[in-house]
Parts: sequence; C-alpha cells; structure tokens
Amino acid sequence: MSRRIVVVGGVALGSKAACRAKRVDPEADVYLIDRDEYISYGGCGIPFYISGDVSDVSELRSTSFHMLRDERFFLKDKGVVALTGTEVTRIDRQGKTVAIRRKDGTTDTLAYDKLVLATGTTPRMLPLPGRDLENVFTVANLHDALAIKEKVTEGSIGKAVVVGGGFIGLEMAEALADMWEIETSIVEVFDQIMPGFVSPSLATMARKTIEDKGVRVYTSEKVEALVGEGAVSAVKTDKRTLDADMVIMAVGVVPNTGLAKEAGLEVTPQGWIVVNDQMQTSDPDIYSGGDCAAVKNLVTGELGYFPLGSMANRQGRVIGTNVTGGSARFDGAVGSFVVKIFDNALAGAGLTADRASAAGFDAVGIQVAQFDRAHFYIEKEVIFLELVVDEKTRRVLGIQGFGGKDSGMVARINAVAPLLKYKPGVEEISNLELAYSPPFASAMDIINALGNAASNYLDGRYRPMTMEAFAACWENRSCGDTFFLDCRANADAQPFADKYPEIWKSIPHDQLVDRMDEVPKGKKLVLLCNTGVRSYEAQLNLNAKGITDNVSAGAGIAGLKTWGVDFGLDK
Amino acid sequence: MSRRIVVVGGVALGSKAACRAKRVDPEADVYLIDRDEYISYGGCGIPFYISGDVSDVSELRSTSFHMLRDERFFLKDKGVVALTGTEVTRIDRQGKTVAIRRKDGTTDTLAYDKLVLATGTTPRMLPLPGRDLENVFTVANLHDALAIKEKVTEGSIGKAVVVGGGFIGLEMAEALADMWEIETSIVEVFDQIMPGFVSPSLATMARKTIEDKGVRVYTSEKVEALVGEGAVSAVKTDKRTLDADMVIMAVGVVPNTGLAKEAGLEVTPQGWIVVNDQMQTSDPDIYSGGDCAAVKNLVTGELGYFPLGSMANRQGRVIGTNVTGGSARFDGAVGSFVVKIFDNALAGAGLTADRASAAGFDAVGIQVAQFDRAHFYIEKEVIFLELVVDEKTRRVLGIQGFGGKDSGMVARINAVAPLLKYKPGVEEISNLELAYSPPFASAMDIINALGNAASNYLDGRYRPMTMEAFAACWENRSCGDTFFLDCRANADAQPFADKYPEIWKSIPHDQLVDRMDEVPKGKKLVLLCNTGVRSYEAQLNLNAKGITDNVSAGAGIAGLKTWGVDFGLDK
Ligand SMILES: Cc1cc2nc3c(=O)[nH]c(=O)nc-3n(C[C@H](O)[C@H](O)[C@H](O)COP(=O)(O)OP(=O)(O)OC[C@H]3O[C@@H](n4cnc5c(N)ncnc54)[C@H](O)[C@@H]3O)c2cc1C
Ligand SMILES: Cc1cc2nc3c(=O)[nH]c(=O)nc-3n(C[C@H](O)[C@H](O)[C@H](O)COP(=O)(O)OP(=O)(O)OC[C@H]3O[C@@H](n4cnc5c(N)ncnc54)[C@H](O)[C@@H]3O)c2cc1C
Ligand SMILES: CC(C)(COP(=O)(O)OP(=O)(O)OC[C@H]1O[C@@H](n2cnc3c(N)ncnc32)[C@H](O)[C@@H]1OP(=O)(O)O)[C@@H](O)C(=O)NCCC(=O)NCCS
Ligand SMILES: CC(C)(COP(=O)(O)OP(=O)(O)OC[C@H]1O[C@@H](n2cnc3c(N)ncnc32)[C@H](O)[C@@H]1OP(=O)(O)O)[C@@H](O)C(=O)NCCC(=O)NCCS
Ligand SMILES: [Ca+2]
Ligand SMILES: [Ca+2]
Repeated sequence: MSRRIVVVGGVALGSKAACRAKRVDPEADVYLIDRDEYISYGGCGIPFYISGDVSDVSELRSTSFHMLRDERFFLKDKGVVALTGTEVTRIDRQGKTVAIRRKDGTTDTLAYDKLVLATGTTPRMLPLPGRDLENVFTVANLHDALAIKEKVTEGSIGKAVVVGGGFIGLEMAEALADMWEIETSIVEVFDQIMPGFVSPSLATMARKTIEDKGVRVYTSEKVEALVGEGAVSAVKTDKRTLDADMVIMAVGVVPNTGLAKEAGLEVTPQGWIVVNDQMQTSDPDIYSGGDCAAVKNLVTGELGYFPLGSMANRQGRVIGTNVTGGSARFDGAVGSFVVKIFDNALAGAGLTADRASAAGFDAVGIQVAQFDRAHFYIEKEVIFLELVVDEKTRRVLGIQGFGGKDSGMVARINAVAPLLKYKPGVEEISNLELAYSPPFASAMDIINALGNAASNYLDGRYRPMTMEAFAACWENRSCGDTFFLDCRANADAQPFADKYPEIWKSIPHDQLVDRMDEVPKGKKLVLLCNTGVRSYEAQLNLNAKGITDNVSAGAGIAGLKTWGVDFGLDK
Repeated sequence: MSRRIVVVGGVALGSKAACRAKRVDPEADVYLIDRDEYISYGGCGIPFYISGDVSDVSELRSTSFHMLRDERFFLKDKGVVALTGTEVTRIDRQGKTVAIRRKDGTTDTLAYDKLVLATGTTPRMLPLPGRDLENVFTVANLHDALAIKEKVTEGSIGKAVVVGGGFIGLEMAEALADMWEIETSIVEVFDQIMPGFVSPSLATMARKTIEDKGVRVYTSEKVEALVGEGAVSAVKTDKRTLDADMVIMAVGVVPNTGLAKEAGLEVTPQGWIVVNDQMQTSDPDIYSGGDCAAVKNLVTGELGYFPLGSMANRQGRVIGTNVTGGSARFDGAVGSFVVKIFDNALAGAGLTADRASAAGFDAVGIQVAQFDRAHFYIEKEVIFLELVVDEKTRRVLGIQGFGGKDSGMVARINAVAPLLKYKPGVEEISNLELAYSPPFASAMDIINALGNAASNYLDGRYRPMTMEAFAACWENRSCGDTFFLDCRANADAQPFADKYPEIWKSIPHDQLVDRMDEVPKGKKLVLLCNTGVRSYEAQLNLNAKGITDNVSAGAGIAGLKTWGVDFGLDK
C-alpha cells in the first residue's frame, strides 16, 4: 500500500516538503492542507508588491514559467492534493489521524503515515487600545498584501506609521515612502533598528540612509495607543503623537503551535516546536520545520529561531526526503539575512557582539571600511563590515555589514556564513579566498582586511574605536580631554583643524614619524583618516614610541559620515 | 641590533610582505628591491586602463587616497627602503647576502637576516618567426600597458589578434574591441577558451557572448608565425591568415626562479619555488610566495600554481608576519577566480570536471540554470552554475559559473570556495545558507538547486545532459534515433514541434501523467523545458513508469540559447 503523507500548512515549508516527498516516492498519497485559500505564495515578496517592484500579486503565486500555483497546479504538476480553506483542528497521534474542518463547516478525519507540521506563525499584535481600528494592518499573507495595496493605490493614505524596525518594518516603510510618497514614520521600542541583527553602529548607518530618504525613525519609543474613530488617525507613543492614516504592525511573530502542544509534542519555552537533525519532532512520525520550529544555532550550539523563507525551503526538502524513507540531515543554521535599504544592503550571519556576549562569549565587534571593488576601478563604493570575534579563542562568531547597491555585500556575507559552523579563527578570514578581478573585489579584499584588523586587535597592535563610541566622544568633545589627530592629506584635514583648532590637528601619516614631537601629549588621542588604514598605521608609529593612549576611528571618516556624525563642514 | 629583511621583487607579494614586516617590527630594516622602475602597481588593472575604465596609469600606482606609491611613499608612509632599477643577481646563502646591480651598472652586496623572493613571472613568448616585429606585445607590466595604450590611442590599429584565450587574453580582447572598436580576434590552441578553468559548456557560453560583441574566436588553432615588415601585419595560424596591426601574446607565464635555482633552493619540475605552510623555502631564512611559488591545492592535496594578485597579497602578509618572528600560516588555495566577459561574470573555484578526472577523481559536472534573484522580482537574469562532484564519495570538488552582470555570480562562488578544503558533500551545498531577500537571491537559491540537482543525479533519480552533449546531439538530430520531448507550456513548445514535426513533441509537464501513452517509444528521449526543472520532473514521471532511456537537458533551453544552440527559430 502507498504511504500517506499529510502536510499541515501550505506556504513555504509545507509545499516544498509535499512536492519533494511526491518526487522521492511517486507512489505516495500526499496531502497539503491549509486553512487559507492562498497557498504557496512568496510572502517575502509582499513589500515589493506594495512598492511596485512586483507588478501583480499573482506573480507571488506563480512559478518562474508563469504558472499559477493553485490546487490544480499542485495536482497536475506536482501530484499533490492541496486542500485549501481547510483547517486541521486536532492530531490523534495514537490513531495517526488528523481532524479537519472545511470553510463550509464540514469536518472529517484523515489518516496519515507521516505528518508534517508547517503551520508557521501569526504576526504579533500588541494589546493596544485601538488595535481593531480600520487601516491597522499586519503583513503576513496575501490578504494583508491586497488590503494594503488597495489602500495605498486609492490615494487616501497621506501618512503612515510602521510599528517595528525589524526587516519587515523597514521594507514596508521603504515601499510606502519611496513608491507612494507617503509620509512614513517607524517607531521601534529598542534603541536601534534591526535589534539583535546588527550592531548599533551598522543600525545607525541604515537608519541615516532611511532618514535621508525622508522616513522618520523613532527608537527607544513605545507605542501606547492607536487613536481614531472607525479608522486609525494617529499613533500615541510614550513621547509624542504621530498622525497616521495607516498603521503597519511589524513587531514579530508568534508560532502557530497550538496543534503541536495539544498533541503533546515537545516545544521550547517560547513555544517553538523542537526537532532533531532529521527535522523529526518528539513523535518520530511527525516532522516539523519552517517558522513554527526551532533548529540548532550552529554558532552557540543552542536551539535557535530563524523565521526565514529560505530556511523553510531547505528544511522542507529535507523533510520531503525523510518522510519518504530517506535520512537527510539539517544540522542547523547561522541565520544569514539581507535586507535592502533603498540603494544599500544590510546583511549578516551568526551573532552580533551583543548577542554573543549574552551567550557567554568574550565578544568584540571589529569594524572596517573599504571600497567594494578595486579602488582604481571606475565603479565602486565604500562598504562597511563588522566581524564579531571571541577574544579568548579568536573564533569568528558572526559578520554583519552595510552598503553597496548590488550583490557585493552578500558576496562577502555568503563567504563567511557557511564557514561559521567550522569555528574558524580570524586568520581564516584573513586568508579567505574570494574571487578577485577589479570589477568585483579588491586584491586584498575588505573581507581580508576585516580578518586582518581583527587579528591586529587581538594581537594588541590595533586599538580601534567603534562608530558609536566615536559619536559619543564627538558629542563630548568640548570637555577637552580628547584630541583628534587627522592622518589624511593636509587638503582633507586642514578644514577640520581650522574649524576645531583646540582639538583637531592635521599631521598627514607620511609626515608623522618626522613630526612626532608635534603629537599632543597628555591627551587621549583619537586618530582619524578616511577608511582607517592610515590611522591604524599612525597608531603603530605611536606604539613604537611608547605612546599608547590613543584609539583609531575604526571605519574612518567615510564610516562616520555614513553613520551621520556631523562635523559641521560641508564636505 | 635590528633585523634586516630584504625583499626581491616589488609588485604584489613583495611590497605587501615588506610593509607588513615593518608594521610588525618597526625596528627592522626593510629593503624592497626591484629591477623595474615601476613597483607596487595593480597589474590586474591593465586591461581596464586599456579599456578606459581606469582613466590614468598613475591610478594603478596610487592608494585609495590618491598617493603615488613610489620610493618616497614606501619610505615615508611605510618605513620601507625601496630600491628600484636594481637587480638582485645572486644569493649567497652561506654569507646571507645578495648581490645587486643598479641600472647605472654599479654593483653591491646587501646582507640579510631574512630574504623574501617575490620575483614573479615573465610572460611566455612563443618561439615564433616574427615575434620581434613592432606592435607585438605581452601584457605583464606598466611598460606594456603604456605602450599598448599609446598605440591604440594613436588610432592606427584597425585589427588586432590576441593569442591565448585565458583571462588576460579575454580581458584584453574586450578592451580593444569594446572601447577602441578594433576588429579583434582571439586564437586559442586548446579546444575552448579558459581551458582548465571552466567546462567546455561554460566556455562556450562565454565565447558566444564575446562573439556576439563582434570579437572572433578561433579555438583548436595554432599560431605558426607573425608576419610583417618592421611592424606586424598578419598572424599565420595552421588554418588561416589573420590581418593584424597589433598582436597581444597572452599564452601564460614562466616563473622567474633563476636566482632561487642557482642558490639551490627546491623548485618543482615546472620551475616554481616550493614553500611550506609558513611560506618558507627549503632554506628557512628565505621565504617566497606569489607568482613564482607553488602552494598546496586544497582540493587535490598536491602542489598547485595560482598566479593571482589576490593570492600574492594574502601570502605577502603571512610572509611579512613570519620574517619578523611570527608563525602565520598559509594552508593553500582552491584558486577562486572571476573574469568579466562584457556584461557577465565567468567565475569558479576548485577543480573542473576535466581537471578532477585527471587528478584521479570519478568526477562529473552538474549544470543548472536559474534566476539570480527571486523570479518575481523586477530585476533578474538567468545565470548558470556547474558543480563538480566525485561520484564515489559525493564530495564537492569545484564550482564554476557564467552570467549575471553584477556581483551575483561571485556571491555564489565565494560561498562555496572557502568550504572546499573541508571536503563538503553535495548535501552541504543543498543546505548552504545564503542570505535571502528577493532583490538578492531566491528562497531556494540557485546554489541550493545546484546541490539538489547533484544529489538527485548521484541518487540515480536525475539523468542530466550537459549543454555540450546536447549541442552534439542536436547536430546529429537528423540521424533519427533521438526524440525531443518539450515539457514547456504549449505556447512555447509548439513552434518547435511545428518546425521539427518528426523529432519534437510538445507535452506540457502538467499534462504528462495524463498523456503518458503519447510519449514516443523506442527512441532515446531528450526532455526539455526552460531551465531544467520541468524536464527533471518529467523524468521522474517517466521513471515511475519504468521509462528510463531519456536525459534531461540540464540547463534548459535558457542555457542552450546562451550557449548558442541554433534552433532555427527567432525566439
Ligand atoms: C512581509 C514579509 C517579508 C519577508 N521577507 C523575507 C525575506 O526577505 N527573507 C526570508 O528569508 N524570509 C522572509 N520572510 C519570512 C518568510 O515568508 C517565512 O519564513 C516563510 O513564509 C515561512 O514559511 P512557513 O511555511 O514555515 O510558514 P508560513 O508562511 O507562516 O505558513 C504557514 C501556513 O500554515 C497555515 N496553517 C497554520 N495552522 C494551520 C492549521 N491548523 N490548519 C491548516 N493550516 C494551518 C497558515 O494558514 C499558513 O498558510 C518574510 C515574511 C513576510 C511576512
Ligand atoms: C593583465 C593582467 C591581469 C591580471 N588580472 C588579475 C586578476 O584579475 N585577478 C588576479 O588575482 N590576478 C590577476 N593578475 C595577476 C597578478 O597581477 C599577479 O598575480 C601578481 O602581480 C603577482 O605578483 P608578484 O608580486 O608575485 O609578482 P610580479 O607581479 O610578477 O612581480 C615580480 C617583480 O619582481 C621583479 N624581479 C624579478 N626578478 C628580479 C630580480 N632578480 N631582481 C629584482 N627584481 C626582480 C620584477 O621586475 C617584477 O617587478 C593579472 C596580471 C596581469 C598581467
Ligand atoms: C515552489 C514550491 C511549490 C515547491 O515546489 P517544488 O516542486 O519543490 O519546486 P522547485 O521548482 O523549487 O523544485 C523542483 C525540483 O527541481 C529541482 N531543480 C530546481 N532547479 C533545477 C534545475 N535548474 N535543474 C534541475 N533541477 C532543478 C529541485 O531541486 C527540485 O527537485 P528536488 O527537490 O527533488 O531536488 C514551494 O517552494 C513554494 O510554494 N514556494 C513559494 C513559497 C515560498 O517559498 N515562500 C517563502 C519565500 S518567499
Ligand atoms: C599597497 C601595498 C603597497 C601594500 O601596502 P600595505 O601597507 O600592506 O597596504 P594596505 O593598505 O593593504 O594595508 C595596510 C594595513 O592596513 C590594514 N587595514 C586595511 N584596511 C583597514 C581598515 N579598513 N581598517 C583598519 N586596518 C585596515 C591592513 O590590514 C594592513 O595592516 P596589517 O597588514 O598589519 O594587518 C601592496 O599591496 C601593493 O603594492 N599593492 C599593489 C600591487 C598589487 O597588489 N598588484 C596585484 C593585484 S592588482
Ligand atoms: Ca550605497
Ligand atoms: Ca548577463
């Protein structure tokens, strides 16, 4: 008899697992069940549908060869029976059946040999007064997408507030502001956008880019109520009231694991389904993955939670293989991500310094700036990377970066992400073998410079200062105990020295050894140049003279300007 | 007393090693010696200087902050004494000195504590009649660059022949043809361009792109003589005579290892200096690296030769660390490379299938085609990857690819290259964790599809046909034993079926299971669709019916068209 595979949830993990299972075992009966009428859609494309970069919602449901992925498609193209508008209400593990309820109210039970839980998540809705007002949206599925798009195309939305500065919030804010010219604000309760994903320095760079495009960003600010009559008209925070014709709530997700819990499957304290490295739950006949499950974080070794569509697809295939008798493995993840921020990429993998410290590592983040291509090549731009390393073991724990308008940033993040599970040391990043030709990289690529800077720091040769730290120091510059030594060419440095004669001095790096006696004594020195190379070399020159009470502005003035430090000078 | 470090050769490896050494030990006396007057230049930028993408030759000698890297720069900025126009003529290992001869004929000896040989290579000049004619150039240094640029700017060059279809030949041909509208031909003695670097299939794709831009490419063709009076006027091959006002010889390099050999240092049979993983030669006080040295190929475990500027830089830093008492390691390389082919990238790392077979592996190359970004995203293009795997062990031995106008291709190659030394299996590529968001990748990225296709092949589930094999089969289509089954939508397939009614049939994949009896019997079937997904799935449907004498056109019609298969139809 053919085996029966029942998959609950039909978006990313579920549909992938179902299709793969049928391919591996063409004899199997495969059911794909979803309570929604839309299945198999690219939810990740919703912000781009709103922005117009995806022209029609049907494209999010179509294959690359323009076939709509509806029930007929699953049946005819994939041999999978898709039951939409059908909720699974209970699992009977003993009897190996699930209970289903159709939209029309009819119910049934369906036997399974292997069951797959791909129930995903529900967007978190803050328990705020006014949350049920019209024009308050979450962004999770095509219903949301259609409803939001309809509103913005109507032209009645002049102002919008996005609650949450995570990746969905940022993408939605960009879509509303850039395409629809809606006056958009982001309110984030943490003190930075993309909390947990990137350092404060990189978050501030992204924030400035967003603000430069006219989107207002309010961090460390808590939404207290949504205000309006019928429809929302304003958002009240603990600091102000923002007018709003539309509110997008993008404050995270909660796993849909009621079914799993009721069935007595093991879940984490936060509610995610626990699976082993074959994606099996605590019941070996039940598999799970995607947004509703936790997998091992390959950096910490602990369970982690990575609600990513790419992850769901890869896990789905592993499950499809295994429910048909295979033994494919999914060892875990490091959480590679990327988000487009207007013409830039914000990306990363592994742990941030903050997360790594919280996980017990002795973590530090080293920041560097460099051109993404050969500096002599016609097209290029300065990009920024941060390497998170453990000071005790020199182990690389994560990498994050900002900048670059094409795939140059992911080209670097992708090179490090798959290595992280092998516990590389910083020297492995110094020697990382990227493909080099002037239109694509530098001979000593920024990724190698990043490893080198980290090794210099760990060797006690380099004392960098993060962009956040510089900004704080610059704010307090009038207190007089810090002195800025500018190692750039005099033409670049002199305007700064002229404007801040008490605290800023120009000694080009190629003159430093000869002019050592001009270096201010008894002050904490901050060494500066454009990207951090000359200021590092100046630090070595000072080290050699025993002058060590100084730091080098890590990502240079290029970094500080992108960050938003205001030097009060035009260029 | 301070240690004396003498570096012979001042381009990539030498200048990096010297600068790093001085940074690690500021007390050291560091000498950088080169017989040329130009040192520390970006040779990799020469083709882009010719093409105009680098506007002035001085940019190839300048830092990112526009400082010319001349003797003064090395002294003042780096604390390194650069002696240009100075040849090292002999090494006295006993006495630890080198003999030098200056341009003016004066000689001297210089003692060393540690010596670094960074003597690089000399371009190979074929022993051809006419090789000394005017306007016959090699491309190795700034003298060549200046001379070639002068000629092309004069406007007297109407036709050029590039001898050699390796990366320098291709870059030079593009520069001459694209920027200067010179009628350019490439003559390559092997049967493909980029021999040893990519498969015949990928080479043909690149070749077609080049030919579409008007450059003629002659493979399997041997240059026999350069013809002309005073200046070159033609190139005689074993098949034809090509008019030529300029000839670029780009047929490889020979190592400058006379000094090393005379000093009795160990060299490989091909003449490259042998070093250990600290970049030490057989004399522990003498280090070497860059183009004149061999390092371990991390895929084969044998000595390999990787004449790449990026490699020289990374090795240079390791040497700089070690000559000043450190113990940095350089374990070897996998040879990541990329070359821009007009608006596309041709890139790779590790072994090609041919090289892997020669090295004793049971190698196969699996080819896939997929969009570089989410197929529903507005900007995207189909790119092509090939994974080289060992059939016995499922180990991944290499990856190569073609396509994509930005860094999307290197973003994939870079993700695999650093892993190769860990001997990953194909499943590791299936689960490779690339950063995903629609503007940068696909949820199931092409890299994952590549691993999946390879695992399906190894599992006996998928029988792909390479593009080269398809082309050969298409050439012989009239012999009548092959039948083409087109699994695309009827609108795409019918024109082919109409044009080739005897051998081509349209059964869209979603109708195949129902129309199984229409599948031609007793013929070898070639299954086709646009990128290879539906034809693979059709193969599974046929497998299930026991019909296995069929192959799936691996990279689909998208691949075959890019390759240049002529279907005799407009679209
Ligand atoms: C706006 C947006 C942008 C995103 N961008 C990215 C990105 O750039 N990169 C990235 O990697 N990821 C991105 N994601 C995340 C990605 O979409 C999710 O990780 C992915 O959809 C998870 O797939 P899943 O199948 O696990 O769960 P889901 O997509 O949540 O699907 C679960 C399905 O299960 C159904 N279901 C639940 N319970 C039952 C039940 N009892 N009976 C029947 N059906 C049930 C639900 O109706 C739902 O259709 C984005 C998500 C959104 C919303
Ligand atoms: C046109 C072109 C394009 C390239 N493109 C790329 C690319 O895209 N990517 C990439 O990775 N690589 C590329 N390369 C290769 C890269 O330039 C080389 O790998 C790199 O220059 C090697 O550096 P090296 O220091 O080892 O040797 P070299 O650059 O060869 O320098 C050796 C130096 O040693 C000097 N010398 C030799 N013997 C003596 C002696 N006895 N006394 C004194 N001096 C001596 C020579 O004069 C020479 O200056 C390209 C090369 C060329 C020519
Ligand atoms: C598309 C979807 C229905 C899965 O169906 P699928 O049948 O696995 O579809 P795919 O086209 O990805 O893969 C089909 C097969 O072709 C193979 N394949 C893909 N590209 C190939 C190529 N170029 N050559 C050969 N085989 C290829 C795949 O490996 C797969 O086979 P396998 O799993 O047996 O190895 C499911 O992924 C889906 O619904 N996706 C949209 C939702 C989503 O992912 N949302 C979140 C992110 S936006
Ligand atoms: C430039 C050249 C002279 C080397 O000099 P160098 O002093 O090592 O120069 P770099 O600017 O690369 O590096 C200087 C230091 O700054 C460090 N650094 C680089 N970027 C940094 C950043 N953003 N922040 C902090 N430190 C940084 C480097 O790690 C290096 O220090 P380390 O080696 O002690 O770790 C040599 O590489 C050269 O001649 N290059 C051109 C020739 C060439 O490479 N040709 C072939 C390819 S086209
Ligand atoms: Ca940018
Ligand atoms: Ca292209």
